[in-house]
Amino acid sequence: MPVVVRNTPRADPALVDALGAAGTATVHEAQGRTGLLHHRLRPIYRPAAVAGTALTCEVAPGDNWMLHVAVEQARPGDILVVTPTSPCDDGYLGDLLAESLRAHGVRGLVIDAGVRDVAALTAMRFPVWAKSICAQGTVKETLGNVGTPIVCAGVLIHPGDVIVADDDGVVAVPRADAPRVLDAARAREENETVKRLRLADGELGLDLYGMREKLAAKGLRYVEHAERAEQP
Amino acid sequence: MPVVVRNTPRADPALVDALGAAGTATVHEAQGRTGLLHHRLRPIYRPAAVAGTALTCEVAPGDNWMLHVAVEQARPGDILVVTPTSPCDDGYLGDLLAESLRAHGVRGLVIDAGVRDVAALTAMRFPVWAKSICAQGTVKETLGNVGTPIVCAGVLIHPGDVIVADDDGVVAVPRADAPRVLDAARAREENETVKRLRLADGELGLDLYGMREKLAAKGLRYVEHAERAEQP
Amino acid sequence: MPVVVRNTPRADPALVDALGAAGTATVHEAQGRTGLLHHRLRPIYRPAAVAGTALTCEVAPGDNWMLHVAVEQARPGDILVVTPTSPCDDGYLGDLLAESLRAHGVRGLVIDAGVRDVAALTAMRFPVWAKSICAQGTVKETLGNVGTPIVCAGVLIHPGDVIVADDDGVVAVPRADAPRVLDAARAREENETVKRLRLADGELGLDLYGMREKLAAKGLRYVEHAERAEQP
Amino acid sequence: MPVVVRNTPRADPALVDALGAAGTATVHEAQGRTGLLHHRLRPIYRPAAVAGTALTCEVAPGDNWMLHVAVEQARPGDILVVTPTSPCDDGYLGDLLAESLRAHGVRGLVIDAGVRDVAALTAMRFPVWAKSICAQGTVKETLGNVGTPIVCAGVLIHPGDVIVADDDGVVAVPRADAPRVLDAARAREENETVKRLRLADGELGLDLYGMREKLAAKGLRYVEHAERAEQP
Amino acid sequence: MPVVVRNTPRADPALVDALGAAGTATVHEAQGRTGLLHHRLRPIYRPAAVAGTALTCEVAPGDNWMLHVAVEQARPGDILVVTPTSPCDDGYLGDLLAESLRAHGVRGLVIDAGVRDVAALTAMRFPVWAKSICAQGTVKETLGNVGTPIVCAGVLIHPGDVIVADDDGVVAVPRADAPRVLDAARAREENETVKRLRLADGELGLDLYGMREKLAAKGLRYVEHAERAEQP
Amino acid sequence: MPVVVRNTPRADPALVDALGAAGTATVHEAQGRTGLLHHRLRPIYRPAAVAGTALTCEVAPGDNWMLHVAVEQARPGDILVVTPTSPCDDGYLGDLLAESLRAHGVRGLVIDAGVRDVAALTAMRFPVWAKSICAQGTVKETLGNVGTPIVCAGVLIHPGDVIVADDDGVVAVPRADAPRVLDAARAREENETVKRLRLADGELGLDLYGMREKLAAKGLRYVEHAERAEQP
Repeated sequence: MPVVVRNTPRADPALVDALGAAGTATVHEAQGRTGLLHHRLRPIYRPAAVAGTALTCEVAPGDNWMLHVAVEQARPGDILVVTPTSPCDDGYLGDLLAESLRAHGVRGLVIDAGVRDVAALTAMRFPVWAKSICAQGTVKETLGNVGTPIVCAGVLIHPGDVIVADDDGVVAVPRADAPRVLDAARAREENETVKRLRLADGELGLDLYGMREKLAAKGLRYVEHAERAEQP
Repeated sequence: MPVVVRNTPRADPALVDALGAAGTATVHEAQGRTGLLHHRLRPIYRPAAVAGTALTCEVAPGDNWMLHVAVEQARPGDILVVTPTSPCDDGYLGDLLAESLRAHGVRGLVIDAGVRDVAALTAMRFPVWAKSICAQGTVKETLGNVGTPIVCAGVLIHPGDVIVADDDGVVAVPRADAPRVLDAARAREENETVKRLRLADGELGLDLYGMREKLAAKGLRYVEHAERAEQP
Repeated sequence: MPVVVRNTPRADPALVDALGAAGTATVHEAQGRTGLLHHRLRPIYRPAAVAGTALTCEVAPGDNWMLHVAVEQARPGDILVVTPTSPCDDGYLGDLLAESLRAHGVRGLVIDAGVRDVAALTAMRFPVWAKSICAQGTVKETLGNVGTPIVCAGVLIHPGDVIVADDDGVVAVPRADAPRVLDAARAREENETVKRLRLADGELGLDLYGMREKLAAKGLRYVEHAERAEQP
Repeated sequence: MPVVVRNTPRADPALVDALGAAGTATVHEAQGRTGLLHHRLRPIYRPAAVAGTALTCEVAPGDNWMLHVAVEQARPGDILVVTPTSPCDDGYLGDLLAESLRAHGVRGLVIDAGVRDVAALTAMRFPVWAKSICAQGTVKETLGNVGTPIVCAGVLIHPGDVIVADDDGVVAVPRADAPRVLDAARAREENETVKRLRLADGELGLDLYGMREKLAAKGLRYVEHAERAEQP
Repeated sequence: MPVVVRNTPRADPALVDALGAAGTATVHEAQGRTGLLHHRLRPIYRPAAVAGTALTCEVAPGDNWMLHVAVEQARPGDILVVTPTSPCDDGYLGDLLAESLRAHGVRGLVIDAGVRDVAALTAMRFPVWAKSICAQGTVKETLGNVGTPIVCAGVLIHPGDVIVADDDGVVAVPRADAPRVLDAARAREENETVKRLRLADGELGLDLYGMREKLAAKGLRYVEHAERAEQP
Repeated sequence: MPVVVRNTPRADPALVDALGAAGTATVHEAQGRTGLLHHRLRPIYRPAAVAGTALTCEVAPGDNWMLHVAVEQARPGDILVVTPTSPCDDGYLGDLLAESLRAHGVRGLVIDAGVRDVAALTAMRFPVWAKSICAQGTVKETLGNVGTPIVCAGVLIHPGDVIVADDDGVVAVPRADAPRVLDAARAREENETVKRLRLADGELGLDLYGMREKLAAKGLRYVEHAERAEQP
């Protein structure tokens, strides 16, 4: 049943880069608060920010054989997205594999497992979002899949989907949704620029967002400390 | 029942700053090893160190509405201290709210939940101690409390208590105890300065602290490896 | 039963330094994927890399008395390796103890528990691999052992064994195995240098490692996305 | 500073038993969703249900000395509530201490740490809510407090507060609030009895609770699968 | 965007029941080791075993409003499968909702969050697989989805898919795959019956599965303890 | 390097059974609070209690091949003790392997990983202490060791050591220490029988253990609640 699917379509590179510029928090909001991978995936160094198209890879626990298979299917602009078939913290990728991925244009790695050689990865600025850092290596005995839809850290990802990753985590955008999400992200960003200035100027969110009425309707009461302390 | 308590008293700013200079480890010791928040709260960047007066806020899981309410109650020198009513890792605060807090003189955030926009928060040097970093946003539907006593990460905190936070974690000092704790912290620091020099000079803690007799009384034995290896 | 074993033999310093230069991932592979401490032990700052001989210490939970005892047994080139008798996250070591250890030539600390004063430890570049960072101090009431074999983070460590620690974690090499492991590590490094260049040059691991035949024998299939999508 | 506070007042036994009959979920709701200890505290056997007045005890990690001190302060109807000053999973209580507590009328134990001898505790039906089960014993070296306010598993508990514990967890009710909370609990129970029958009869919560209008107002849409599948 | 999809197709009841009889471990193997939900989902009582068709539901953290919406869409033979949009341990379901679900023919609940009233749920034998048991209730403020594809505990589940749950966990089988997986499960079961008898009779797996040659080829060595102990 | 060591010596069966009768908590105390495996290992059903001689087995993550190899080396009275070379929660053992182990006289399983078929294992009363319950199976690709010393859940275990397991956890006793530990355990048990009666009779531990003087010497103060409340 293990399979490598070749020549899967990728999202439009212009959309990918534009979504990357918006960042994970904005993109996540812009697509209706979906697509966020579990926050256990953390960047191995900070700051780090990258966007690319998903090159998906499903691996056995403690076995990184399919990562080598995946390299051949990589295209410039891809991000390798790896999920193990059962939870594992072993170090699936070291600096050699990172060199290989980089040579084939891969922009980074997202893995719901561990990596090693993080000092070298940091020095070469190869960004990785991983569940753990662990010197434990892996074997090459069991097949898996490349280029198939996978669930990684709780999110369904199809090959070619947009992956946006930064210090806040990793978010995936389905390829077909990328234009719509980008529009929403831009609208959100414009909106936020104005708000940021007004908030930095001291205007209260209560006023800026018009929250006072709704808060009162829900029953929020304001009391003075001095009066409250007097009561039994 | 949700309530906002206005004009709660704050600890004396001079005491706050002096306790901040002592740092969490010393302050924690100085008040008899109490008041330390659970170490799951970590600074989002390092080094970070701040002290302030607690502006308390209790929120629903996945709902940051009350943070906006809290901003209005802030005074320069406050630290916003947030606890959810049930465990949650969502990102309650982003850079806009941080701008707003800063505009009102808030020195930092302590939250037993998540935050996002950490790259921006780091760039603007707004210090945060949080349980997690997570791009997942929150809703604004459920009321909570501002300015009431809360339990945050295992510690009871009243509004206006002193909060000291640094790379080792977060410690709270009840407002009324601040003078006494500061005295104890200073005595401890003076004591440590001398000890540090003597230890750095090679003097043994065994001698400096006069431990040998007590160790012997408890039954500690010393044996030579060579003799031990010979025995069966 | 608590005991301090004096004058335990240490591994050859030249071997220690050479293994340190190889790093944890290589050393771990070189000794047959054994000796790696659990990845919950993380460096308190990065990058950090050190090698030394194990000065072992077994402590009660929340009690760092034996660390003071251990300092007297230290020799230049040692790394203090500490394990609690039951899981604990308290801060066993602060900057004073670090000064003391440094004064006696100890190169770093590996502890399956917590430490504090990490800002000071970072400033003085005293490397520590710990399970947690926690301002909570410890008492000095219960005896333990120094210089005995211990299990630390899942690995059996004898006094004098080689400890190699870096950003990927911590690995222990039995003293008697050091020469053999170093030979294997060097062979591995030479091998990797060539591979790194070829992989960076775009050569596929599939070819470099001759994997294609074995993959096919195991049943890996390649399909075209276009053809696959057409099927029901 | 360690102190034993004698003769702390207890909540009214009739209120305690009535709240116990309502159970944790109802009591927690009845007092506005406050007072619930973290769900990491679990009963060591099921079913288990008990209510009593809090006999509070604060202990050092790995040290159960103060439990013996607490026994002397116990009164019939108490539940011993224990919190360590830093996280610990050791087995603080075994069957001997349980016999002693029972002999003094203590109805059960709530502890944010571990217990042991659970087979014996189960056989004697001494109910315990604990964070862990662990054969690791403790020492008797460090003092703590009995009869002082403590934070246990995230909740502030005063001596004499009502403790209700069952298969769903543990909830604390401040002594002064007990009458009011009991009233609210009873109102809630009556309300639930009717609802349970109607729901068991097939009536929809949507109708019983009148939710349809609010759902529509928030924007919930209903679509037919058949129609949805036809769309692009 | 929140939506309720009505009248989603369900898997064939005969297939559902047959797969349920096979159990999770066999079904998981039979479909190529896919579809297993994370083992953090555990039955609230044991033994428990059930199979049904997925009625999917996506909810906000701490908000169980959509469960009431889901009841109306239920059909006899369904299992309610619930996933929160961010991690949450609150008690989403109590005995009233269970009564309601049962009245509409729902066979059980699978939820990557918490439940409460487990004593009542156990007494009424309503099986639940949950991440946690927690008396903390939820609010009804935020919309979600019913009848859409969801990722629950790491597995993509479409409405109408087969859910098999027992003491070993929960596995999902895509509706279209059910016939094929059932065939494979039956073949596996027949095979296992014979093997079980032979193994229970003392025959070695090494012989039954013909492993000796492959073990030798991989390099497994057998040595006598007595000889080994003599060597240096 | 993978090796199977044949005919390793076993502890004396009479000692094994006598230690088993004492239970884990007593045995752990009797050997100076050493040898306790981490409490993450829990029995899959309760009550469960067994003692035997360790048949050690080291396995790759997600690979149970060596368990089949281990069966051939089993002798009546053994307990199979399994540790993975990196953390893993997969289900290494199901009911077929349990039948095979039982046929060869193995009394139970201790594994720092997962098991499956727990309903069947419970029905056949084959006791297992495991880290997790997980339907996920394993592969048979990578060799490991049988009959070598291993570290399991933090404890060094040699083949033939005594394993005592019950509802409180698992403790290992080195073969050579068994007579001495048994003597200490018996002395402890006799001592406890008397104490249990006196404590059940209401005598205070404070008096029974003569603690009052030491408590006072350490500085424990007793105050009356009424007097304390009056103070500012």
